[in-house]
Amino acid sequence: MALLDGKALAGEIIAGLREEYQRIPKRLSLGAVVVGSDPVVAKFIAEKKRIADELGVDFRIYEYDAAISTNDLRANMAALVHQARLDGIIVQLPLPPAINAQSVLNAVPPEKDVDVLSARAMGNFSVGKSPVFPPVVGAVKALFDEYKINLRGKIVAVIGAGALVGKPIATWLLLEKATFTMVEEGGDIVAATRNADIIISGAGKPGLVTADMVKEGVVVIDAGTSSGSFSTDSTGSPQAISGQQASLVGDVDFESVSKKAVFITPVPGGIGPLTVAMIFKNLIVLASQD
Amino acid sequence: MALLDGKALAGEIIAGLREEYQRIPKRLSLGAVVVGSDPVVAKFIAEKKRIADELGVDFRIYEYDAAISTNDLRANMAALVHQARLDGIIVQLPLPPAINAQSVLNAVPPEKDVDVLSARAMGNFSVGKSPVFPPVVGAVKALFDEYKINLRGKIVAVIGAGALVGKPIATWLLLEKATFTMVEEGGDIVAATRNADIIISGAGKPGLVTADMVKEGVVVIDAGTSSGSFSTDSTGSPQAISGQQASLVGDVDFESVSKKAVFITPVPGGIGPLTVAMIFKNLIVLASQD
Repeated sequence: MALLDGKALAGEIIAGLREEYQRIPKRLSLGAVVVGSDPVVAKFIAEKKRIADELGVDFRIYEYDAAISTNDLRANMAALVHQARLDGIIVQLPLPPAINAQSVLNAVPPEKDVDVLSARAMGNFSVGKSPVFPPVVGAVKALFDEYKINLRGKIVAVIGAGALVGKPIATWLLLEKATFTMVEEGGDIVAATRNADIIISGAGKPGLVTADMVKEGVVVIDAGTSSGSFSTDSTGSPQAISGQQASLVGDVDFESVSKKAVFITPVPGGIGPLTVAMIFKNLIVLASQD
Repeated sequence: MALLDGKALAGEIIAGLREEYQRIPKRLSLGAVVVGSDPVVAKFIAEKKRIADELGVDFRIYEYDAAISTNDLRANMAALVHQARLDGIIVQLPLPPAINAQSVLNAVPPEKDVDVLSARAMGNFSVGKSPVFPPVVGAVKALFDEYKINLRGKIVAVIGAGALVGKPIATWLLLEKATFTMVEEGGDIVAATRNADIIISGAGKPGLVTADMVKEGVVVIDAGTSSGSFSTDSTGSPQAISGQQASLVGDVDFESVSKKAVFITPVPGGIGPLTVAMIFKNLIVLASQD
């Protein structure tokens, strides 16, 4: 078993970004919309601010009360988009459950949508016309490139169809013409995982994937942490769920699964830091397109 | 084995649309962009014109030379979108291979995109914010509703990730949180089909699905005909392929597979006529939103 060291790779990527950033003749700014005062949200934002500071990106936090309405938040977003000189905008998820998250996400124009979560950015990505990848896709691609893992001829199992992991990963696998199975919690997960060469889990459910469900030599990507703490209901409307536990634990029982896996991401230190690095990569790519 | 009679259901749907149409206080018009003089394209257009005439929709065909460039075609599209009083616009596929089809499709604004093929319309659909379904999705949903076929607890196999069948079907299945496997020609199709409760094929490859690949009691949706004659490459750029044969034959070996299937679509008379009906349903839904 070899560890897919996302933390180390994220460090290398950020070092590379620092060089690319020097070629851009202005200081970039990234706005983060934060609603309420969830401690997990605060932790995610702190991590992004840390990387912004490291790179010299102007990171501006826009805080709103947890009781704000979807309409008021959208109105504030519109003002942000048009008035502030922001090169990128993120809406920190999860939002309070009363807010229609997708409606808010759609207020971010594609050229500033570093998270690729608006309908327009997702649409561009789904038809192969996006200059940037959804962060989790960029993270998985970076690991696959680094560790020479190839999709060709492989069977992939994707667990969870949430907006932050399963949906963008599935959309990417469609573009790649990969063979893959999507399965949700409550579906027959074992049927999908037992023959899979690669498992990508974003269910946000600790201990969901255990050793008896996987085959020897499997590649396991555990994205069921911070990124897994946000899902969409059957109509596609995102619903915030508590991310407290999910931010600390992945979907995979690392102790047992790592004994059968050829490659596996740890949690923390796997997909998480790479996803944050990809947000800044996207910021630089989008800003370079102006 | 029971036949999923798409032709009969399409007739019922069109009868229902005629009533809905009467509630709209203006005559609707549908523009069809046709490039070159492919006989299969002519056949598809003739079928759409027939339904338009039946409903009293003003069907306008805009023909362009096969040698037109992507840029010139886009410029013509822009003029069409802004000048003509069209309630809906279709770009008849396949386009000549030299044309960047997705770039042309993206010129159709979402509120007129009855085919749901532009990046914006696909994006809206993928986040659950589209008022209309991609025609093939509407067609499959109509059959499932009519014949009481439910996705819950079922395993679906989707063959082919093309822009007209596999991609929209997969996007729908993601929204439905269904368990499904995507597989392309060249992948291990049997591994996907042998355990599937429902098979949806849009590969555009006659005889691809045979009886030995499916289990007893399977539901088989063969969309590998007209709709299968268009696919995207790995970058997501659509590529036209010859649809001559595909317009007449499905992916499924009906003779043998029908002996094991509980429900199966014939070709012709299955998904094809329903897909055409759905274009007009979308036209009426979109026009009603003005």
